Amino acid sequence: MKIIIIGASGTIGKKVTDALNDRHEIITAGSKSGDLQLDITSSESIEAFYKKAGSFDALISTTGSGHFGPVSTMTPADFKKGIDSKLLGQVNLVLIGQKYINPNGSFTLTSGILSSDPVLYGANLSAVNGALNSFAIAAAIGLENGVRINAVSPGVVEDSPSYFEAFPGHIPVTMDRVVAGYLRSVLGAGTGQVIEIF
Amino acid sequence: MKIIIIGASGTIGKKVTDALNDRHEIITAGSKSGDLQLDITSSESIEAFYKKAGSFDALISTTGSGHFGPVSTMTPADFKKGIDSKLLGQVNLVLIGQKYINPNGSFTLTSGILSSDPVLYGANLSAVNGALNSFAIAAAIGLENGVRINAVSPGVVEDSPSYFEAFPGHIPVTMDRVVAGYLRSVLGAGTGQVIEIF
Ligand SMILES: NC(=O)c1ccc[n+]([C@@H]2O[C@H](COP(=O)([O-])OP(=O)(O)OC[C@H]3O[C@@H](n4cnc5c(N)ncnc54)[C@H](OP(=O)(O)O)[C@@H]3O)[C@@H](O)[C@H]2O)c1
Ligand SMILES: NC(=O)c1ccc[n+]([C@@H]2O[C@H](COP(=O)([O-])OP(=O)(O)OC[C@H]3O[C@@H](n4cnc5c(N)ncnc54)[C@H](OP(=O)(O)O)[C@@H]3O)[C@@H](O)[C@H]2O)c1
Repeated sequence: MKIIIIGASGTIGKKVTDALNDRHEIITAGSKSGDLQLDITSSESIEAFYKKAGSFDALISTTGSGHFGPVSTMTPADFKKGIDSKLLGQVNLVLIGQKYINPNGSFTLTSGILSSDPVLYGANLSAVNGALNSFAIAAAIGLENGVRINAVSPGVVEDSPSYFEAFPGHIPVTMDRVVAGYLRSVLGAGTGQVIEIF
Repeated sequence: MKIIIIGASGTIGKKVTDALNDRHEIITAGSKSGDLQLDITSSESIEAFYKKAGSFDALISTTGSGHFGPVSTMTPADFKKGIDSKLLGQVNLVLIGQKYINPNGSFTLTSGILSSDPVLYGANLSAVNGALNSFAIAAAIGLENGVRINAVSPGVVEDSPSYFEAFPGHIPVTMDRVVAGYLRSVLGAGTGQVIEIF
């Protein structure tokens, strides 16, 4: 399979890449790292990226960021950060990528536990993750040519210890379990699933 | 109680307004209708609106729109419609409104059944509704001074027959049940709830 991994140099992306590298043709991508560069916050950049990458069988997105901070001082501009990056970035990878993906291909997006299990500074990412989960279940019934889509929703991961303090009482999930979620989406047959790893 | 209702002239808003009108001081608002006008897609307009409306005890939002159409032809610009209107419009009513709301006040937003139960053309609204539900549960733990927030998530409502064809097999919910959801949020004590009316 030809698999594109956006965010392949990241904490989650590099473990997912390692797990798929030896059996598949992998194209890694990031804004600065990887085989090809793109900026997911720009539709033009996404379109240009797909033109370069060519047709593919699976796209995995382990990228996107948001604003982390108190609601009481959050501004519309703060909130828009996660919308433009983690939400619209990933949604636009699908909306544009559906023109380039092979029949029976798959999109795998990354949301996260905050959609259902909020932490004090996480309201922006909660909203973004909730949107991504609902987009995955809805887009699944609209994508054509047998193309699948799922969202992997990890808890805070063991390789991100700097986040632990912001997630009191959350038990970090092992990278093996996180990677398994992506493998289930890409190599399995499910669609419209929110694959919760927590 | 002084209650602001954004979208008070709409299908849902007018029934909610009718149910609260005789026992509370109501300020109705819309882009063209109501006691005061604002455009929820503009932060500046929202800020100016709150300055005019003054402090208040409850804000009910029954407004916001999105793109309705097939995923296979959906563009980033299409998807952005629901983000800018129904999602950011309502989120910004909260982020800006928290500076004007009285202690122990409440925000009640409107999401909808598509977050969990998609229909073929509804992927944009699914994402928006999922975001609003997760924002409500997350913002609830961050709002200060006892301020509450809930999302009412109606199924397709009986007063919107033009939507029925796009919701095959959905049983329209009665306006009485929909109105009860808003009353539960405003007059009850719950916070961080997604009040499902379906
Ligand atoms: N870490 C966790 O505990 C955790 C838990 C749940 C969910 N998540 C979610 O999982 C995803 C990945 O998290 P992570 O911790 O692995 O992130 P990370 O270590 O910060 O990695 C981010 C990756 O995205 C790429 N990237 C950044 N900005 C980009 C842009 N504008 N366009 C294209 N690529 C871009 C980066 O490459 P360049 O440097 O080359 O741009 C990098 O490969 C995020 O959506 C995060 O919210 C993470
Ligand atoms: N109807 C349903 O079956 C149903 C089911 C589930 C969820 N919902 C959700 O419930 C909400 C209300 O739906 P509805 O059917 O009652 O809508 P509607 O009849 O179209 O009413 C919309 C209301 O919002 C106001 N409005 C429109 N644009 C605005 C703007 N830019 N700024 C401020 N106000 C604006 C309108 O007043 P002006 O004309 O003066 O602008 C009107 O009062 C929406 O979020 C919808 O997605 C509806």
